[in-house]
Amino acid sequence: MSKRVGEGTVELTSRPWAAAWSSTAGKKEHKGPLGGSFDFTLDDDLLGQKTWELAEAAMLRDTAIRCLDKVGLKPEDADVLLSGDLINQIMAAHFCARELGIPMLGLYSACSTMSEALAVGGILADSGAVRRAVCAVSSHFSTAERQYRTPLEQGGQRPASAQWTVTGAGATLVCGRDWLPEGVKPAAALRYATIGRVVDYAVRDMANMGAVMAPAAADTLARHLLDVGRTADDYDEIITGDLGKVGRELMLELLKEKGVKVDPSRVWDCGANIFSPEQDTHAGGSGCGCSAAVLNGYVLGRFAKGEVRRAAFMATGALLNATSVLQGETIPGVAHLVVLERERG
Amino acid sequence: MSKRVGEGTVELTSRPWAAAWSSTAGKKEHKGPLGGSFDFTLDDDLLGQKTWELAEAAMLRDTAIRCLDKVGLKPEDADVLLSGDLINQIMAAHFCARELGIPMLGLYSACSTMSEALAVGGILADSGAVRRAVCAVSSHFSTAERQYRTPLEQGGQRPASAQWTVTGAGATLVCGRDWLPEGVKPAAALRYATIGRVVDYAVRDMANMGAVMAPAAADTLARHLLDVGRTADDYDEIITGDLGKVGRELMLELLKEKGVKVDPSRVWDCGANIFSPEQDTHAGGSGCGCSAAVLNGYVLGRFAKGEVRRAAFMATGALLNATSVLQGETIPGVAHLVVLERERG
Repeated sequence: MSKRVGEGTVELTSRPWAAAWSSTAGKKEHKGPLGGSFDFTLDDDLLGQKTWELAEAAMLRDTAIRCLDKVGLKPEDADVLLSGDLINQIMAAHFCARELGIPMLGLYSACSTMSEALAVGGILADSGAVRRAVCAVSSHFSTAERQYRTPLEQGGQRPASAQWTVTGAGATLVCGRDWLPEGVKPAAALRYATIGRVVDYAVRDMANMGAVMAPAAADTLARHLLDVGRTADDYDEIITGDLGKVGRELMLELLKEKGVKVDPSRVWDCGANIFSPEQDTHAGGSGCGCSAAVLNGYVLGRFAKGEVRRAAFMATGALLNATSVLQGETIPGVAHLVVLERERG
Repeated sequence: MSKRVGEGTVELTSRPWAAAWSSTAGKKEHKGPLGGSFDFTLDDDLLGQKTWELAEAAMLRDTAIRCLDKVGLKPEDADVLLSGDLINQIMAAHFCARELGIPMLGLYSACSTMSEALAVGGILADSGAVRRAVCAVSSHFSTAERQYRTPLEQGGQRPASAQWTVTGAGATLVCGRDWLPEGVKPAAALRYATIGRVVDYAVRDMANMGAVMAPAAADTLARHLLDVGRTADDYDEIITGDLGKVGRELMLELLKEKGVKVDPSRVWDCGANIFSPEQDTHAGGSGCGCSAAVLNGYVLGRFAKGEVRRAAFMATGALLNATSVLQGETIPGVAHLVVLERERG
């Protein structure tokens, strides 16, 4: 049973499990500093499909199946699929769902979708509404670039604030306390969820998504800490989604302005760490597959080994719509936060 | 606290309230048979904004505010906004959320988004995760036509199976049992939610959305009745979203094939009823604003007057992506179902 804490945080009092996790990444991501932590690397970013969109859907489906398979489960052992991606109408998620056959709630909060899925999945498992929820999210460099920006063939110049959309997917199996498969050792429990507000600091630059997301990230983290009566030091790590290098600095500045003390060494960003500087992605990686793959590879892997015991995972989303930007509108951002904790013993 | 019933239905054991509701519709919708049941009719489908997209966002925001205002609440009295629309990246919902300031979960299941929002909002309120949830959904003829089909100025010919995207919005305030504002008489309680599966019967025709959605609707309704051990006769009404005239017939046929007995006189479709035959919309209305406005006008209005006591509301969505259709892919559908019940006394 869930409990409202403070103004806007949900405590998952039964502490549902992050019971299984799986990640997939593209070749470029595999060559980055976290490359060794992904379960599966694509040899071919088309996965043998005839379009990138179908490739992304297949990657998402395969990641969800691998996640279930790790703990000996089949799609029918899950009651709900919580899924989204960046293709218009979350096409990859829907094409994945029609093959898996799991009842699906379609989610969209841009690159914050992984933590949105964990927040909803956590509450559903905590409340007894479902036994198990598959939270699965993807992005693909080629589907995102052609939809949001310019044809790849144009070879446009990218500014230093630009980020590189990650080809990757991540899936987490969230299990209610009574529904952990026998013999399975979960990585961590879900303890809190703080749902983000949509925040707009009047940024219009499609090549500076970090600046769009930073205010939303600062807002959610500040509200979270106030709601649960913790300080940032109570977390081993605060993991942001894909603020990139520019957005991370802006978030830390905004937190300072709000009077929220944060030791910068505890805060790291999936987007700023998925590629090495030599890979020339400028401000880092982005796309909902970025934080999804890093969470379901590097982060939960370290939880499982006991290297992290308590972390706030806050994926961040730039709510970019190509039409509204052309119409001169500003771009809002959002950030959802979930707390993962490893219990003693 | 929620309870899993059967294979895939959630029982909301505390029965959260549909405490307030509001609807907005365009001029054409106002001239239809249900015109008198909408709270507010637009004189100008631009609402004084410079683009249709901003107009849709303003319509959605105003509908949510009116819904809260009816029971003396402000946006800060709600803990979550569950919202979606048909514009890419659910732009209207995000632009609405940045003005309301309510923490937001972005949802997308095309024209099934109203029942998806009620399902999630019901579970969140039932579990104690939130006090009150605003479920708000919209569509706009002009934003949808130019995004999914052809420029309006082209004046393309529409086949008989085509539907007309409704300009409209609906908002429902879902309250946990302890959080009904004093003196407020709710319309009904939320009792069950059956989350839809993504079903694809290989339809490729963008001008026959009824055929896309009918198999998903039949699947969800059949699963629901089996899960809760009820027959269709246990419902005063089974209200589908926007199957239109073609889709409604197909759903009834598919239910017959599945051996599910349904008295057709109990089944009516929001899309098939929002316009009169003289309005020349062919198979009827569509768009997530169609079922949202009809639910939050005509349907909950009749619940409040005691004219309906128990209904299954099943909005239906065609998960159409313009790129994938051009790539030759088929269009999947989905349908989420919630049960509304008026208690005795």
